[in-house]
Amino acid sequence: MYEPDTIAAVGTAPGAGAIAVLRVSGPDTLRVMHAVAPTLLLTPEPRVAVFVRLRDADGPVDEGLLTFFPGPHSYTGEDVAEISVHGSPYIQQRMLEALLAAGARLARPGEFTLRAFLNRKLDLSQAEAVADLVASGSRAAHTLALQQLRGGYSRKIEDLREQLISLSALVELELDFGEEDVEFADRTELVRLLDEIMGVCSGLIASFRYGNAVKQGIPVAIIGAPNSGKSTLLNALLQEDRAIVSDVPGTTRDTVEETLNLGGVLFRFIDTAGIRHTQDTVERLGIERSYKKAAEASIVVVLGDAATLSTGAFHTQVELLRKRIGDQPEFIPVLNKCDLTAEAAREDRGVMRISAKTGDGLDALKARFTNHVHALRSGEGDIVVTNARHVEALTRAKEALLSAKHGVQDGLSGELLATDLRQAQHYLGEITGKITPDDLLGSIFSKFCIGK
Amino acid sequence: MYEPDTIAAVGTAPGAGAIAVLRVSGPDTLRVMHAVAPTLLLTPEPRVAVFVRLRDADGPVDEGLLTFFPGPHSYTGEDVAEISVHGSPYIQQRMLEALLAAGARLARPGEFTLRAFLNRKLDLSQAEAVADLVASGSRAAHTLALQQLRGGYSRKIEDLREQLISLSALVELELDFGEEDVEFADRTELVRLLDEIMGVCSGLIASFRYGNAVKQGIPVAIIGAPNSGKSTLLNALLQEDRAIVSDVPGTTRDTVEETLNLGGVLFRFIDTAGIRHTQDTVERLGIERSYKKAAEASIVVVLGDAATLSTGAFHTQVELLRKRIGDQPEFIPVLNKCDLTAEAAREDRGVMRISAKTGDGLDALKARFTNHVHALRSGEGDIVVTNARHVEALTRAKEALLSAKHGVQDGLSGELLATDLRQAQHYLGEITGKITPDDLLGSIFSKFCIGK
Repeated sequence: MYEPDTIAAVGTAPGAGAIAVLRVSGPDTLRVMHAVAPTLLLTPEPRVAVFVRLRDADGPVDEGLLTFFPGPHSYTGEDVAEISVHGSPYIQQRMLEALLAAGARLARPGEFTLRAFLNRKLDLSQAEAVADLVASGSRAAHTLALQQLRGGYSRKIEDLREQLISLSALVELELDFGEEDVEFADRTELVRLLDEIMGVCSGLIASFRYGNAVKQGIPVAIIGAPNSGKSTLLNALLQEDRAIVSDVPGTTRDTVEETLNLGGVLFRFIDTAGIRHTQDTVERLGIERSYKKAAEASIVVVLGDAATLSTGAFHTQVELLRKRIGDQPEFIPVLNKCDLTAEAAREDRGVMRISAKTGDGLDALKARFTNHVHALRSGEGDIVVTNARHVEALTRAKEALLSAKHGVQDGLSGELLATDLRQAQHYLGEITGKITPDDLLGSIFSKFCIGK
Repeated sequence: MYEPDTIAAVGTAPGAGAIAVLRVSGPDTLRVMHAVAPTLLLTPEPRVAVFVRLRDADGPVDEGLLTFFPGPHSYTGEDVAEISVHGSPYIQQRMLEALLAAGARLARPGEFTLRAFLNRKLDLSQAEAVADLVASGSRAAHTLALQQLRGGYSRKIEDLREQLISLSALVELELDFGEEDVEFADRTELVRLLDEIMGVCSGLIASFRYGNAVKQGIPVAIIGAPNSGKSTLLNALLQEDRAIVSDVPGTTRDTVEETLNLGGVLFRFIDTAGIRHTQDTVERLGIERSYKKAAEASIVVVLGDAATLSTGAFHTQVELLRKRIGDQPEFIPVLNKCDLTAEAAREDRGVMRISAKTGDGLDALKARFTNHVHALRSGEGDIVVTNARHVEALTRAKEALLSAKHGVQDGLSGELLATDLRQAQHYLGEITGKITPDDLLGSIFSKFCIGK
């Protein structure tokens, strides 16, 4: 299925560190190791880290630790070696070149994990979880990726698929006895089973709303008039969070200005223009775009100015916005600047009163964000789908199952029924990789980083 | 000498990679490991990488490989463990927090290597070589750091020091017999030995000119009139180099615009203003600064325009510049734009004629750069000093030796002689760390990166 050549890559993050690790996998691993580490034993003890002096054709490169993992008990299932060197970019590069000169090929992104999949060390959904795990930046995203890596999800899908295979077997048995009009599969029982499997598929599909929100971050739009204190609120929400993360060294956050980690869940703030009545065409286009973005958010915070708006007038504004934006997001109406009106922060007739300036009421607002996530989560089982590819496969499987159910109810031939059932099996099989169209693997593993 | 608590750090470069490695060292290492990896054997097999599930108080964090290196056969000489995890910043941070929660302390920069030194796994000059090795960005700098790490340099210094100790012993023996006017140490032989040791010190001190240039990059100033083609030349020199490095992934070069790697040696181009006669005060200040910078360079390329300057007129210019700048750098007079004068590139009466535009003559110019380094190198032995601290110690040792020699020649008392010899031993001992003033260690190891 694949060319079993020998691949090499730097596995650790690019740049200078105390140490860096290079990985090699493939049938020539030992030969490559002996080329760069001449003092290595002919058959090194499996999994034991040994001190070696490393060299290339030009001379000594470094000294470091070399660990040999003979296949099949290795990450990829092939012979694997890891070399730990001093972490200068120069040494990393020269050592990598030494491995390539010794006969290894530079690994493509995700190729180590692809090989693990091809050698049945991981199924496809677990392999995808590896990429998710490396990418996950919040506790909740990390938990989901780790669960998927540990295989509970795969077992659930395989379980569904096996149920379908049993059903198909019965239906196909009928086909063999086609002329005789025998029914091995009780039609009532068949519909019950199809409903049950469809129910599980639906639950998994529904869990994607939570899974995706957690993986990508929960999108939050703050909209309101230009003077309602949008950026003061955003800064007040973010400031505290930033203080929390900054005292741990080595944390990199690309977009710290726009994300907030609450209770291990990431919230992403969507940039929107100020909303107001205007004749200016350009500004109106900006406001239209804000509505559109808000419609794609999970949470819309509608912000008003407590000093100029009554609760009633604000309610009217919120209802108008809800009509423009739609009911998909959760709306949280918030009247800001309650410090100016000398009111305490509180929730009153569905409106939160806060002061972004003094921080009053912010905890209650954050609690609303967190509750939103709990509500998404509730009703789902332990297993959460985080991968759009899986949702697509589950959706197609469900369609095929529905078609099968209608077929049974309409008394269609067993042959059409069998086709539908096989289709559903096929789509479920794509998730764990029991069925792998050629182009699928390429598109999955190319998203990995090199060295994984 | 130090508080033997247990330290932890992420050892690999910050950021996301396929894998990251955390290191722990100290007496509590095993206890900390059992806290984060509950399935680990009570006494894990030394140096064997085992698969573990990693957790903190909140639940599962990752799965990875754990290798235990019991002291004293470890990097630090203490119990050490390395944990290889999935390389997300989130996992790195959470795993580090788990180690700290389990009783480890966040390591200070260089603290692992400091412990290696304190436990006599490395001497001080080797420990410094570790930092140099991680920092080295060219083949030549890397080679020097690796040589120093391998200890040849330390042996040479220790050798000198032992010779001095033998000398001192003889001289101090005389002091015991003070009244009797015995001379155990033959004065002629003593002076010969002192000269020999001073000679070695001088050679080592001289080698620093090469060692430092290689470690920091050879500074090159290109100066000339604004229209002489300075930036064309710089681009022409750099372009090729850039093409060479860019096809290797993972190479980061912060200042690719200003450095050139020739034959494994780094050349740093110093930014200078164009030189011309001017009444403008600001511009004249800029030109003065350029002279000053050029005086600190190893190589000064004086660039003229072949289309407007005769060789003779250019010679006069170069001589004027040499007077302003001084004789310390090597001057390379270059007439550019020989394409405009339809001449071939060549060297004529000490002037190189090139065309930065067509590339004609650039190889010859690069060869001059490389020869400059060979000239610096020649005359030095195998061992090259790259560390300013060592040069200072060697210089002080040499001063003490000279004082001892004069003392012998002037017939001074054995006591003064013994003091000088002890001083020289002291300074040599500082290099390898046989003698370590308290503040010295702090200043050396604080320059390391965390995790080393």
